[in-house]
Amino acid sequence: MDQYRPPLRDIKLVLEHIAGIDEIITYPGFEHVDEETISGALDEAGRFMAEVIAPTNRVGDTIGSRFADGSVTTPDEYKKAWSQYVDAGWNAVTGPLEYGGHGFPETVGFAVSEMFVTANLAFSLNAMLTGSAITLLRDHGSDDLRDLYLEKLVTAQWTGTMVLTEPQAGSDLGAVRSRAALNDDGSYRLNGSKIFITWGDHDLADNIIHLVLARLPDAPPGTKGISLFLVPKFLLDDGGGVGERNSIQTVSIEHKLGIHGSPTCVLSFEDATGYLIGEPHQGMRYMFSMMNQARREVGLEGLGIAERSYQLALSYAQERHQGRAVGTAKTETSPIVDHPDVRRMLMTMKAYIEAGRALLYDTAAAAEHSHRHPDEAAREDAAGRVALLTPVAKAWCTDVGVAMTSVGIQVHGGMGFIEETGAAQHYRDSRITPIYEGTNGIQAVDLVLRKLPMGNGTVIGSYLDEIAALDAELAAGSDERLLAIRAQLSESLDHLRQATSWLLDRDDPNDVLGGATPYLDLFGTVAGGYYLARLALAALANRADSWLDAKVDTAGFYATNILPRSAGLLAAATSGATTLFAIDTADMDAR
Amino acid sequence: MDQYRPPLRDIKLVLEHIAGIDEIITYPGFEHVDEETISGALDEAGRFMAEVIAPTNRVGDTIGSRFADGSVTTPDEYKKAWSQYVDAGWNAVTGPLEYGGHGFPETVGFAVSEMFVTANLAFSLNAMLTGSAITLLRDHGSDDLRDLYLEKLVTAQWTGTMVLTEPQAGSDLGAVRSRAALNDDGSYRLNGSKIFITWGDHDLADNIIHLVLARLPDAPPGTKGISLFLVPKFLLDDGGGVGERNSIQTVSIEHKLGIHGSPTCVLSFEDATGYLIGEPHQGMRYMFSMMNQARREVGLEGLGIAERSYQLALSYAQERHQGRAVGTAKTETSPIVDHPDVRRMLMTMKAYIEAGRALLYDTAAAAEHSHRHPDEAAREDAAGRVALLTPVAKAWCTDVGVAMTSVGIQVHGGMGFIEETGAAQHYRDSRITPIYEGTNGIQAVDLVLRKLPMGNGTVIGSYLDEIAALDAELAAGSDERLLAIRAQLSESLDHLRQATSWLLDRDDPNDVLGGATPYLDLFGTVAGGYYLARLALAALANRADSWLDAKVDTAGFYATNILPRSAGLLAAATSGATTLFAIDTADMDAR
Repeated sequence: MDQYRPPLRDIKLVLEHIAGIDEIITYPGFEHVDEETISGALDEAGRFMAEVIAPTNRVGDTIGSRFADGSVTTPDEYKKAWSQYVDAGWNAVTGPLEYGGHGFPETVGFAVSEMFVTANLAFSLNAMLTGSAITLLRDHGSDDLRDLYLEKLVTAQWTGTMVLTEPQAGSDLGAVRSRAALNDDGSYRLNGSKIFITWGDHDLADNIIHLVLARLPDAPPGTKGISLFLVPKFLLDDGGGVGERNSIQTVSIEHKLGIHGSPTCVLSFEDATGYLIGEPHQGMRYMFSMMNQARREVGLEGLGIAERSYQLALSYAQERHQGRAVGTAKTETSPIVDHPDVRRMLMTMKAYIEAGRALLYDTAAAAEHSHRHPDEAAREDAAGRVALLTPVAKAWCTDVGVAMTSVGIQVHGGMGFIEETGAAQHYRDSRITPIYEGTNGIQAVDLVLRKLPMGNGTVIGSYLDEIAALDAELAAGSDERLLAIRAQLSESLDHLRQATSWLLDRDDPNDVLGGATPYLDLFGTVAGGYYLARLALAALANRADSWLDAKVDTAGFYATNILPRSAGLLAAATSGATTLFAIDTADMDAR
Repeated sequence: MDQYRPPLRDIKLVLEHIAGIDEIITYPGFEHVDEETISGALDEAGRFMAEVIAPTNRVGDTIGSRFADGSVTTPDEYKKAWSQYVDAGWNAVTGPLEYGGHGFPETVGFAVSEMFVTANLAFSLNAMLTGSAITLLRDHGSDDLRDLYLEKLVTAQWTGTMVLTEPQAGSDLGAVRSRAALNDDGSYRLNGSKIFITWGDHDLADNIIHLVLARLPDAPPGTKGISLFLVPKFLLDDGGGVGERNSIQTVSIEHKLGIHGSPTCVLSFEDATGYLIGEPHQGMRYMFSMMNQARREVGLEGLGIAERSYQLALSYAQERHQGRAVGTAKTETSPIVDHPDVRRMLMTMKAYIEAGRALLYDTAAAAEHSHRHPDEAAREDAAGRVALLTPVAKAWCTDVGVAMTSVGIQVHGGMGFIEETGAAQHYRDSRITPIYEGTNGIQAVDLVLRKLPMGNGTVIGSYLDEIAALDAELAAGSDERLLAIRAQLSESLDHLRQATSWLLDRDDPNDVLGGATPYLDLFGTVAGGYYLARLALAALANRADSWLDAKVDTAGFYATNILPRSAGLLAAATSGATTLFAIDTADMDAR
């Protein structure tokens, strides 16, 4: 049975030792928050996600959201769960106090998000997109727009969408063609066809607030000519309530590999009424301002599904008996978790999940520091850290998510291929995460082309130095298990340094672009080892607690089995573009 | 559009330079076969698979085989294609001449199989299982049984199944409980419930011949007490035609992640009439005798779907324009195949596919040598080679298949997640291949526990020496591209040698079992580099042919980007069981 048990101990451990939540709550604006409140809120959130949201995961997959007669219908279980979600105030955890939010740190909201995406990814996307809309409106919307829409979005009575993609404009949003023209009353009329609009239509909320990219008549070509508009499904009446229907058609929804509960819509805007957000032609800049947040959250989706897959696989491996492990009596059979190869699969999942969680929460905490730290230099440092780590957190954790859900199937043997088991849904659902919110290839290009050169290499340099500084702590530890961790981390860090220097020194941009993906994997792999080593050091404070002490063994497993991948990744990252382009496409294609 | 173009040039290249088809056809029994006939037959088979079978792939996925009122109905397109398949004689390519077959070498049949599984995996399984039944019946059945059933199976007028698994007996077939008891007339009555029976029921053939594992009343426990029975869906009338229905119920079919066209049945035998094959209690031995063949064919499935996924991704990457590659004019957009990161994905697919194909065909050819070589010592050497390579060919090629179909999705970006594109079906279909016919974990255990110690390590030793011997040929080549290939192959071979010695020297079986999976990956990775280097050397004979010359570049890409993984795999393979079992399962499970 695919139950979800929120990993609250792991989340709290990472909040304390990686995210530095104790420092965050000292920042101005968090006077009403303390560690006890946070801990209690997380327990409550965990209970809600496990008891109310997680049971809707399977019906969302089998029945899914459906399209008929121009509108989308969600499963009944979704409607009930969404209304409980809104009523309980879970959407408002981090929202501004003045707009109905609870004003908790984003890092705490991140932990709530982890449990939400793990409980039901497809369902949680509605809230995630709403969160992006809130950020854009809060940061760039006029006071009028904020007063009309923000509280309803913060509470999730209304939901938000991101309306970006067009058939010819996917990774390259500069190719957007949708048009917007000024009306006499200061509003705009929008025309155009948009695809891949997540939760672009549904029956969970009274209104849907679309944030739409379109071009004004005088727009320059490319990304510098795109403006951002707020276009509600229903126009507001004079009292700010839901009024007449806007001219937006839901044309169809996609039949997808996974996340069947999340309707992916084709929307047609036909003289739809919208309102400009911020300045003309600044739409892409605004989008980028909230993109780091969205990318971290997608990374979290990769982690969350891997966690869910791990829980399912581990419980199956403890229940399923087959064959005899070494040393088992002839009359007995063993749970498959006792077979070394199955144990390897589960340890691999566990180690990657804990490494990814630490990387993600460190990135989220850096974002919080970058917004809230009282010291400006510290805020700038943190902003650099966020910029650097975000593509890694997004791409590495989603690649890991896909790989681990595949392992989760494998642990089940033949049962893993049967849909009723639930492992297959995780595998299907997770596959979207390396694609959306900027493909992982785009993340890798962002990392090597824009992020490594930041501050003339000082941002990456200080991160690598931070990893190097752990060496002294590992050397000082008395536990002999730290020896192997220290030695491998040092060697793998050297591989990361070599690859970094090689990329920074390269003149041919194709050499850099060609090495981007293995470099990002190398970065994530080494960072993962670093975070697990930090957790191991933290765990050593209390060896009597076997759960905590297991963090040292998890770091040890990662160091001996996963970190050594760095050698091969260094080679691939620095292999250059020559071998990539040596073969003509015609010869690649000839059968 | 997901068309299939049979890779005939690649197949013929590997048959010539890796499988040594010119030697095979000199063996007794192949007097009626020559290279021209083979080449023509492959061209015809390719045409048939592309034009008749491949177009049924999608309908098999969307409609699938369905169960109602106790029987399975296949899509109409399947019925039409199957009857063309039978009529054209494609099932009989390798069948014995005396039973209606064409008596071609198994290695040629293997090439036909590649194109069949690639055209429609789910559909091809019906023929594959029939092939296993033919082998078992030919090698172990009585003359009476052979005369009654073999020709109908060879032509595929009737089909065959393997009825092994029970709920408590999956990887551990020793736990089989189904019973068989002798009737007065020398036949047996079988009782038991069986699951995961591929093509266990359908409407494509007049009869289905089940090969069933069950226990006789006096059977010893475990694998030594299992007998093999032939149990037809319809009993035969006096003329050998289809008579009355046997007492076998189709209880249900599974809802699976992929291969929807292949009905996976639960069968109930209720005093069903069957006939003993061979001797009592020898069922597992017979099964193992045909298992190498089946495992190679599953490896081929991994390869085939990767090939199909590659063709689809490459054609999309050539058509889809997005952004501008380095050096492209500002007014243009580039096909995404020109972006280095996309090119890396496609080159990775291409290199793995060509490496896997060579490994598979070498294994298939070794099987043919082991059966047909005129010299007994050569037959024995070849048999050792087959035993060694089979688990690698099965597991490595199917793991690669899953990984590459995931890359195939990624190349498509958002479109990859949409089912209509077709990339997602390959991803779903391929996921069964690391599971069935012995999970890949079982393959790895077989490799390290049973295969490495064969002949006191001389079988693996001679394979490693063969790889080492290529070094001199690479050194003698004048093409400078061979330098990098030679250097990396030498280093990676050393990694494989180290891991092999470590495993052979280990006393604790858990150390060996724990390293099994990374060792198998290391083995496959190095073997892949070896075969690509051989193909590169063969290609250098004709540098004017750019398609052929590209083999050198493919080997170069593999050597610089994939082979270096060997360092990390060596570390994992030799990491021992201590870190694997350091954490108590309760602490792995505590959330």
